[in-house]
Amino acid sequence: MNFRIEIEFDGTAYAGWQRQGASLRSVQGVIEDAVFALCGERVEVVGAGRTDAGVHARDMTANFSVEKKLKLVEVVRGLNYHLGAAGNSVRILRARRVADDFNARFSCLGREYSYLILNREAESPLMANRVWKVHGRLDVAAMREAAAALLGRHDFTSFRASECQAASAIKTLDVLDVRRRAGNIIEIRAAAKSFLHHQVRNIVGTLKAVGEGKLAASDMARIIAACDRSAAGATAPACGLYFVRAKY
Amino acid sequence: MNFRIEIEFDGTAYAGWQRQGASLRSVQGVIEDAVFALCGERVEVVGAGRTDAGVHARDMTANFSVEKKLKLVEVVRGLNYHLGAAGNSVRILRARRVADDFNARFSCLGREYSYLILNREAESPLMANRVWKVHGRLDVAAMREAAAALLGRHDFTSFRASECQAASAIKTLDVLDVRRRAGNIIEIRAAAKSFLHHQVRNIVGTLKAVGEGKLAASDMARIIAACDRSAAGATAPACGLYFVRAKY
Repeated sequence: MNFRIEIEFDGTAYAGWQRQGASLRSVQGVIEDAVFALCGERVEVVGAGRTDAGVHARDMTANFSVEKKLKLVEVVRGLNYHLGAAGNSVRILRARRVADDFNARFSCLGREYSYLILNREAESPLMANRVWKVHGRLDVAAMREAAAALLGRHDFTSFRASECQAASAIKTLDVLDVRRRAGNIIEIRAAAKSFLHHQVRNIVGTLKAVGEGKLAASDMARIIAACDRSAAGATAPACGLYFVRAKY
Repeated sequence: MNFRIEIEFDGTAYAGWQRQGASLRSVQGVIEDAVFALCGERVEVVGAGRTDAGVHARDMTANFSVEKKLKLVEVVRGLNYHLGAAGNSVRILRARRVADDFNARFSCLGREYSYLILNREAESPLMANRVWKVHGRLDVAAMREAAAALLGRHDFTSFRASECQAASAIKTLDVLDVRRRAGNIIEIRAAAKSFLHHQVRNIVGTLKAVGEGKLAASDMARIIAACDRSAAGATAPACGLYFVRAKY
């Protein structure tokens, strides 16, 4: 039985989505452990996105196949019971049966991320590990103009981590939206079929430099054309980034 | 110099606002310690509201008087430095000079609270200690109707903690608003000149019972008239409650 699950997690205490050996706690690893605790089967839990250490998910999709016949309510409550008992900040929101060929990674048609900047002087106790706190008022109009220049199909080498394993750096950015929200929050939403390693965080770091006036929106074309990571801004911290949803 | 400060705190690890002796960590106590670290003066920090253990504040007002001449930026950054160094989840958002007779408690004209219910099955890792998770869909329309019956001037004995020290249980509730928000959140906002001990949490617990169909909106008049704590619903947990702002 192939099950699709939706997952919320606080990534603060995890080495990221991907299992990385016994000593590091990963989101994938603790869900695989919960599946084993539930039905005694060692399976691979395949996720739509491989998030970095410290990155969160509001609604990550994954799937796994087990021999055992499980009801959907057993999947949700059983996995949440074992995740909770092991002290994990990972919970299953929903489960459904899917066809055997459904693969959360390869069947995925689009991924959406959200990045939250808290634009004020004081750290926020209520949003600790949930936002990037940036002091000094950011120019959101300039950030939005810069974002527009990054939309569409480009070679994103300038925004790609050196460890990135993708065969090509050519990606199509479908959404890159910058908005001021209540409570001094600036939200940046990004959607694409797929992303390069650190692509969203490198874009956010570059937009922040634009917001500070250190780069101009008109620099974006030059930065893309450079195909050089050092041409763009610094990598934004992981704690402000959320995997929002996967599209199928 | 009398300073008014605005404070955000995550109340999870605190015994509440009020100082309660050396062994318990209170929000008031750690701010008083930070004032002492900043200028060597032992003062009382007076808050607009005396929140319970586990209750949060988005924007609590307080004041304190010191002999030392401090710039506003020194107050904000200095207190935040010492609060952070001591590992506190309490931060000063703003500071201003106020007249000597300004008293955050007695000058206050109104207090506003917000309560967040997460109305779904799974716990939320991203909102742990920030919401009351209630499984089973609540009837928000019925809750809103019940809330309307509590508005205005009443004897709130049925909603008052037994330890409440107020001289009278007669209070005027100016706002009691129930709304469904994005992400399965139900927000209840309450505003009044002042509140009894546990009044908001007891109202929320009662509205939740209405949302579940265990009480009807038409029961509210009877519950108020009973002047008996056992007539109303259970006390809602502290973690969903936020002190939102004080009015002067």
